[in-house]
Amino acid sequence: MNQIVSNSVLVGVVMGSDSDLSVMENALTVLEKFDVSYEVKILSAHRTPDEARNYFQSLAKRGVKVLIAGAGMAAHLAGVAAANTIIPVIGVPIDSSPLSGMDSLLATVQMPPGIPVATMAIGKAGAYNAAIFAVQILSYILPGLGEEFIAFKKKMAEDIINEKNHKLQEYLRLRKL
Amino acid sequence: MNQIVSNSVLVGVVMGSDSDLSVMENALTVLEKFDVSYEVKILSAHRTPDEARNYFQSLAKRGVKVLIAGAGMAAHLAGVAAANTIIPVIGVPIDSSPLSGMDSLLATVQMPPGIPVATMAIGKAGAYNAAIFAVQILSYILPGLGEEFIAFKKKMAEDIINEKNHKLQEYLRLRKL
Amino acid sequence: MNQIVSNSVLVGVVMGSDSDLSVMENALTVLEKFDVSYEVKILSAHRTPDEARNYFQSLAKRGVKVLIAGAGMAAHLAGVAAANTIIPVIGVPIDSSPLSGMDSLLATVQMPPGIPVATMAIGKAGAYNAAIFAVQILSYILPGLGEEFIAFKKKMAEDIINEKNHKLQEYLRLRKL
Amino acid sequence: MNQIVSNSVLVGVVMGSDSDLSVMENALTVLEKFDVSYEVKILSAHRTPDEARNYFQSLAKRGVKVLIAGAGMAAHLAGVAAANTIIPVIGVPIDSSPLSGMDSLLATVQMPPGIPVATMAIGKAGAYNAAIFAVQILSYILPGLGEEFIAFKKKMAEDIINEKNHKLQEYLRLRKL
Amino acid sequence: MNQIVSNSVLVGVVMGSDSDLSVMENALTVLEKFDVSYEVKILSAHRTPDEARNYFQSLAKRGVKVLIAGAGMAAHLAGVAAANTIIPVIGVPIDSSPLSGMDSLLATVQMPPGIPVATMAIGKAGAYNAAIFAVQILSYILPGLGEEFIAFKKKMAEDIINEKNHKLQEYLRLRKL
Amino acid sequence: MNQIVSNSVLVGVVMGSDSDLSVMENALTVLEKFDVSYEVKILSAHRTPDEARNYFQSLAKRGVKVLIAGAGMAAHLAGVAAANTIIPVIGVPIDSSPLSGMDSLLATVQMPPGIPVATMAIGKAGAYNAAIFAVQILSYILPGLGEEFIAFKKKMAEDIINEKNHKLQEYLRLRKL
Amino acid sequence: MNQIVSNSVLVGVVMGSDSDLSVMENALTVLEKFDVSYEVKILSAHRTPDEARNYFQSLAKRGVKVLIAGAGMAAHLAGVAAANTIIPVIGVPIDSSPLSGMDSLLATVQMPPGIPVATMAIGKAGAYNAAIFAVQILSYILPGLGEEFIAFKKKMAEDIINEKNHKLQEYLRLRKL
Amino acid sequence: MNQIVSNSVLVGVVMGSDSDLSVMENALTVLEKFDVSYEVKILSAHRTPDEARNYFQSLAKRGVKVLIAGAGMAAHLAGVAAANTIIPVIGVPIDSSPLSGMDSLLATVQMPPGIPVATMAIGKAGAYNAAIFAVQILSYILPGLGEEFIAFKKKMAEDIINEKNHKLQEYLRLRKL
Repeated sequence: MNQIVSNSVLVGVVMGSDSDLSVMENALTVLEKFDVSYEVKILSAHRTPDEARNYFQSLAKRGVKVLIAGAGMAAHLAGVAAANTIIPVIGVPIDSSPLSGMDSLLATVQMPPGIPVATMAIGKAGAYNAAIFAVQILSYILPGLGEEFIAFKKKMAEDIINEKNHKLQEYLRLRKL
Repeated sequence: MNQIVSNSVLVGVVMGSDSDLSVMENALTVLEKFDVSYEVKILSAHRTPDEARNYFQSLAKRGVKVLIAGAGMAAHLAGVAAANTIIPVIGVPIDSSPLSGMDSLLATVQMPPGIPVATMAIGKAGAYNAAIFAVQILSYILPGLGEEFIAFKKKMAEDIINEKNHKLQEYLRLRKL
Repeated sequence: MNQIVSNSVLVGVVMGSDSDLSVMENALTVLEKFDVSYEVKILSAHRTPDEARNYFQSLAKRGVKVLIAGAGMAAHLAGVAAANTIIPVIGVPIDSSPLSGMDSLLATVQMPPGIPVATMAIGKAGAYNAAIFAVQILSYILPGLGEEFIAFKKKMAEDIINEKNHKLQEYLRLRKL
Repeated sequence: MNQIVSNSVLVGVVMGSDSDLSVMENALTVLEKFDVSYEVKILSAHRTPDEARNYFQSLAKRGVKVLIAGAGMAAHLAGVAAANTIIPVIGVPIDSSPLSGMDSLLATVQMPPGIPVATMAIGKAGAYNAAIFAVQILSYILPGLGEEFIAFKKKMAEDIINEKNHKLQEYLRLRKL
Repeated sequence: MNQIVSNSVLVGVVMGSDSDLSVMENALTVLEKFDVSYEVKILSAHRTPDEARNYFQSLAKRGVKVLIAGAGMAAHLAGVAAANTIIPVIGVPIDSSPLSGMDSLLATVQMPPGIPVATMAIGKAGAYNAAIFAVQILSYILPGLGEEFIAFKKKMAEDIINEKNHKLQEYLRLRKL
Repeated sequence: MNQIVSNSVLVGVVMGSDSDLSVMENALTVLEKFDVSYEVKILSAHRTPDEARNYFQSLAKRGVKVLIAGAGMAAHLAGVAAANTIIPVIGVPIDSSPLSGMDSLLATVQMPPGIPVATMAIGKAGAYNAAIFAVQILSYILPGLGEEFIAFKKKMAEDIINEKNHKLQEYLRLRKL
Repeated sequence: MNQIVSNSVLVGVVMGSDSDLSVMENALTVLEKFDVSYEVKILSAHRTPDEARNYFQSLAKRGVKVLIAGAGMAAHLAGVAAANTIIPVIGVPIDSSPLSGMDSLLATVQMPPGIPVATMAIGKAGAYNAAIFAVQILSYILPGLGEEFIAFKKKMAEDIINEKNHKLQEYLRLRKL
Repeated sequence: MNQIVSNSVLVGVVMGSDSDLSVMENALTVLEKFDVSYEVKILSAHRTPDEARNYFQSLAKRGVKVLIAGAGMAAHLAGVAAANTIIPVIGVPIDSSPLSGMDSLLATVQMPPGIPVATMAIGKAGAYNAAIFAVQILSYILPGLGEEFIAFKKKMAEDIINEKNHKLQEYLRLRKL
């Protein structure tokens, strides 16, 4: 199961509705930054159950290594995925109902024993982090990815330490004038 | 679809875990009181996805008219059922996690457009009412059931008006002595 | 109780306030799509208790088969309806207070044993699904409706599988340019 | 409406279920302490809608001045009372479901414009305070009751200032030995 | 305590901040409609504790019969009022923080035994109802007010039954064209 | 204001009810461990408003440097203290209602601008930490206290690193036998 | 530890992200009003853990007396600060996620025994109060600051009593015209 | 980074307090079942920050591939781990406060962009699933583990389908006698 299939898609990204795209795009941006091959699909656990199941059951065979699933409301997509595949499933709760994502968070994270979903934060931060977490897993498969991730983390810290604090001090200086 | 299949099972009752039985038995008691034929199964949307799907897809063909699905935590069972059948699905959120059933309530009720789950109260009251609601639907199919339901509602009111209030007045009388 | 009254109204739709109409219209659109006859009323459990009660008590006699009741805040409308009729009552919690519909959800779903309200999701998704669920019940009464519902479910899946995914792939292609 | 009907019942106390009695007794104890005449009934907004309505509509005519209504879950009892009477209605949310009374609190307090329910704390404290609040209203009707309430408040403060703090200091002295 | 002081202020309306005025004005409108004399003050339980206390302790002596107190966040104003007066205190939780009024609701309603605050719904509906509830209490003091309240309730029902439903039917007719 | 009054009480500990003592004792234990003089009182913001106010207004004059206030439900005690004194007030929300302390947490922490209450965790952990935080403030007044606090923190870490981990490894060794 | 280091920074203000500045500026305004020297930094407990730790561990040595830490989401910044310093840490939960600050509030306030964070209200009110609370602590170190704080509190009360109430009465007068 | 270090520890399990062991043992049981080498430590993000940091920073170098971190209240342990290592961190929220784990869930899952924590369900189910998820990741490193996981999932389904349903049918048969 753990050989690297060259040229193949490594990460599947699914979402329950086309309206989830603006949130889930944050995952795509990260995957592209790390040059990780991915595919994207709209699949509803409720409206397209057979297609969802077929897709999830195909993942391992097709060499996909990680699945990212984003959904809102009674978000079952990630759970249904985890039920139908052996590859790690990362869930992104999306805040698309009046309950601000509390519904999708609980429907994603509170999985019963045996079928975990690795749940991320609600909304865009969660979609971004789902891809980061996929990269962390793929570092055990793709040579060089671990080093890129170390560099990414370093740069993220430096941006805050240097650039953002520089701008802050500049702002504070102006503020006191 | 709407002919009455004599001798057939009219209500399916499924639950996500054997530990849900003490809650879901409240539904069975009601169905028995109204002499409605039922079948019971443990089926997990997450741990037995194929069996769950096969069962849900068989319901309409087999003449089952209503499905009652009880589950706790990220309760997907009713939603997965609704995705895989055309018969009405009634969901019972069960309080089997530290969150007191708020997780299973939101995971059951917040269904996306097109795939409704008729959600009942959390726990035993919900299981009881799921069966009552099934009886209300079956009243359109089974001759005489509507009359029985009218009688049941009447008796429920009378129990409160007479018996329970009688006991209360007795208690209050003793209390003041 | 279960004979089909031709030309009669099959679904009653009530709401607690005229401000709920933009939400409840989602139910009307579905009922029209399935050619199900309906009537609509503004009835408040609190402000027009007698009219509400009279209306609810008239439903079964008038041949109405399903009631859909939408209300916000301490949403008692569906519960009062269920108390006063034997026909199935579907409740739609509406998010018309600062609490984002958590108040109306709990006031609708947490019914005591004996008087169920089939509760749907908060807001527009719930109104839409209330009508879908009504159609599922009416499939046991109206010849041909079950087939229409099967076709509707199929089309809903196909829209996602074909059209929405097609647009998504197109968007992703443009994104990478 | 505001003359004092001697010998008549001044406060009605209703509860949705006999299981609410242990909570609602806290109201009775207060009413007895202030020698306020009361009557108690089990009336369910959902299971005995007609009896509830008849009772609530009789209140003003019979000279009852304040109604206290305690209920759990989707607690509609106080709201239905308020809809059917002109006398002040005080609501007590009871924690009889897994949601710890958050359901009954929201179902009692979030009343729509025009039909207020004066909501108290969840459970025993709320039942106790409902009777206190009834006494405050009745002070405008019953001669002497206001003075008794002033004395009650004074004693409540003195109990804390003297007795409870005395015991506390005693305990602290022993603790340090 | 229960004689009617002619020309005197009968209802005090206090709010914790000037930013609460747009909410609390809904109470003033009702009081004016019923011709009930009132006074309005900004008093903070936290920022003006002495003035608040002095004001609350003066209420009974000055013949004020009901106090309405609206506040947001950790809303202590109504509770502090209830601690310092014997007249009935009605609390209005205001949604002025990111928590949508859940903070002010719990800080207003969860009063300990002995010191009730009659809590209304969050925000404008609550302010409106606080005044309605004050009118209900004052009906025991002011001759004729009870009759006005009966007329008000009747008209509220008629507005919905006639006017609002008329507009709804008109809209539905146009919708189907 | 900042001179050290020898022999005087440095920390006031107040609680809203004698039933809060088992929680608040966790603060006393810490204060005793650091040899910080304290006094304890039961004072209710609602039931003993005058005594509470007098006590809070006396604090600064009497040389008390920090106040710890614990209360449950609509916990106003810390807020009322902060309104009536200039010394730092630390609030401990106590879980004494069915809402598990969410009510007292929000009623303590959501203070309006100008009147802060330094809020700690709900219950015993919060009472313990209130005293720790008082020690941190008093380190700026009492010579040697800062050093004691450094030693305390060190020991707390060492207990976990050595003793608790030692026991854990022992347990794990036995577990595998 | 308690000598006053002249010219040195007395208050550190840190925030987890540059987007938190608009909230945290409310603390700066207060510190400037009281002429308390401060420094501001962007430091993320998660993205710059080493810099955050080094900064927190330097605070006591550099004579900083109070730290104010504001962060959103799973707000760990204040907790990590408290773990790494002996000076008092004040936490400001920021509402930067769909959960309206409930996440950052719980992540800030629910600290385990031994490591307190003095938690303020969510958002701007909390940032403002964090600085007020810092001033209260610093009053034990900086001569004259206590007097300034007394004057500030007095003025805050007077603004409400005079100015705001004056405007209110003016508004009410115009309203009735 | 992705070579398999034979004999080395592959999974680190940390918990914030020795009282978390009864929950976290559920992870150990799973790891033992799959014969995955692990180490266990008590490390508090707040009480032992340096030891926690040193441990987390050592993980990648020492060949540990996955970290499981369980903590209650303001659960920062998993987040601090994720900040200090590049290996995947799985978080288990523990319900050790009156808030039933809602605090630890939000403090674990709501991580900011760049530093994901793969969050599991609250309590024992979460600890169990954390180990399952670790096994899924390790399947990409350890030969044969993927096959074992497939077998595990199959057996889990069969247990429900056969054994549990058999017992259920037996129970139902007896029930009807």
